[in-house]
Amino acid sequence: MATPRYLAITGGIGGAKLALGLSRILGSDELAFIVNTGDDFEHLGLHISPDIDTLVYTLAGESNLDSGWGRSGESWQFMAAVAALGGETWFRLGDKDLAMHVERTRRLVEGQKLTPVTACLATALGVTHRILPMSDDAIRTVVHTTQGDLDFQHYFVRDKCEPIVTGFDFSGAEHASLTSELAEWLQSDDLSGVIVCPSNPFVSIDPILAVPGLREALQHCAAPVIAVSPIVGGLAIRGPTVKMMQEMAIPPTTAWVAGHYRDFLQGFIVDTLDAAIKPDIEELGIASHVTQTVMQTLDDRVHLADACLEFIAQLSQSQRATTKIKE
Amino acid sequence: MATPRYLAITGGIGGAKLALGLSRILGSDELAFIVNTGDDFEHLGLHISPDIDTLVYTLAGESNLDSGWGRSGESWQFMAAVAALGGETWFRLGDKDLAMHVERTRRLVEGQKLTPVTACLATALGVTHRILPMSDDAIRTVVHTTQGDLDFQHYFVRDKCEPIVTGFDFSGAEHASLTSELAEWLQSDDLSGVIVCPSNPFVSIDPILAVPGLREALQHCAAPVIAVSPIVGGLAIRGPTVKMMQEMAIPPTTAWVAGHYRDFLQGFIVDTLDAAIKPDIEELGIASHVTQTVMQTLDDRVHLADACLEFIAQLSQSQRATTKIKE
Repeated sequence: MATPRYLAITGGIGGAKLALGLSRILGSDELAFIVNTGDDFEHLGLHISPDIDTLVYTLAGESNLDSGWGRSGESWQFMAAVAALGGETWFRLGDKDLAMHVERTRRLVEGQKLTPVTACLATALGVTHRILPMSDDAIRTVVHTTQGDLDFQHYFVRDKCEPIVTGFDFSGAEHASLTSELAEWLQSDDLSGVIVCPSNPFVSIDPILAVPGLREALQHCAAPVIAVSPIVGGLAIRGPTVKMMQEMAIPPTTAWVAGHYRDFLQGFIVDTLDAAIKPDIEELGIASHVTQTVMQTLDDRVHLADACLEFIAQLSQSQRATTKIKE
Repeated sequence: MATPRYLAITGGIGGAKLALGLSRILGSDELAFIVNTGDDFEHLGLHISPDIDTLVYTLAGESNLDSGWGRSGESWQFMAAVAALGGETWFRLGDKDLAMHVERTRRLVEGQKLTPVTACLATALGVTHRILPMSDDAIRTVVHTTQGDLDFQHYFVRDKCEPIVTGFDFSGAEHASLTSELAEWLQSDDLSGVIVCPSNPFVSIDPILAVPGLREALQHCAAPVIAVSPIVGGLAIRGPTVKMMQEMAIPPTTAWVAGHYRDFLQGFIVDTLDAAIKPDIEELGIASHVTQTVMQTLDDRVHLADACLEFIAQLSQSQRATTKIKE
């Protein structure tokens, strides 16, 4: 039998935790990541891909465990010198991190595509798993707020998620294409499962689903698609997910997230704290699994990754036994 | 009487030493610098202006006195991270220095001109004297060598001046313009003197003279134009001047440099070591002055600056007594 292949769909910090767990169990021929590039932006003339870099640094063992973002052993001489020149300092670029942006920008300006550029940079840092940008075309998350439209990083970093959100737009998505690398993984006969990591549904996962053909590929793929809830006990583990839901008058619940993905989801993993909502999930026609989803340690990450793979295996068996739930 | 105004024409490290001396004597309304941008280049997507930066750092008290180039208190985390990514490391960019290139590039990409961008960055570092790029248009020094044509920084830094030089070209010069700021200084009625600093004649001063109108402005300006020899006792103080002369079968002498500038030069300062060649200079119709030109200490820089101003004053007096030598 051929090697089973898994795809993990992820945004930045929260998703990267599970991604790390998965990478400890599955080899580089068994696992690839689809990563959000909706929060990519041009800053100080550089092409910055925050979610890709978070994943690369995490998998490379280069992430800053103290701050939760950026590179380990980082220094800030560049940033201080930019400040002295009266430049923009709201987006903090460390001296080491900067190398990533400068090298990426250089290669993109030369005409290389983001997918091979990402592969090159990740490989250089010792990452063996494929990190696939959701598209090589520019898609930019725009946050609609009561103060007007904001570029994602202006909303997220500069304005610290303070503006009141009314909706989102993924500018450029309608003209974007799936990359051949991504299509190949999605359409592979060996695809055994897809895992939507516990990332923000609005600004990490929805931009990925906005790439034409991607949502359809998930709806029609032969393997089970599962997600891990980014909400535990009515709270987001990290970031503005729940704040956004409240502002948009969406119930800030795990069940809502499952419903949000229902058109392509076969299974949903909820935290033990939310065990009681299992029936709500199953009412949506989505199988559910309860386990600890809060990841503090590396063991927690590997444990959750294990639970994902086991859940997928169960869903595959029951699918083989009956027919695929969505069909 | 109006404030006297002086212009100093300079390349990088050698010229910047005298520039620093002059800046200690003359106020910011009395002195401006015309700086070579022929060795500017695009690297890692950044617009780098080595001679401007050398002068800015020198005047700001930010230059690295140990290495003789770059910024004081520099660190190299970025460069190490670029190396780890397999990027180009032949041109060493320090973490602090990088801020200058990123900020400059950002402003240029926004459509600002190099002259105001330079003024902004220099002012931010506390430099009060005007630093005027020789042009806002791109002029690039190309080094003709027996191995073919090389971009200046490839010749100078990457290939360590090893290729054998056959000549130079200042690509883009024919279409470049004098800036209004530079023209205003050159044509000022208050212009009291012009000092060509001891920089490499071929790759620091000649690119400046290649800007259409600049050489003519020096030929016709009312104030004395003097130069300080970059050659002492048949040796260049620093850099490849003498090596270039030998390769181009040019006599590596102080007198040759004076002759090279003869169409606009009224006075030439030679080192005490070269006192014997005074008659050769004067045979060219150029007045000469002998003093110590090797600048080790800050006092040496101020001493030479003083000597320049005194020599200019003498030339002005004798000009007023007779007529201007070149007329």
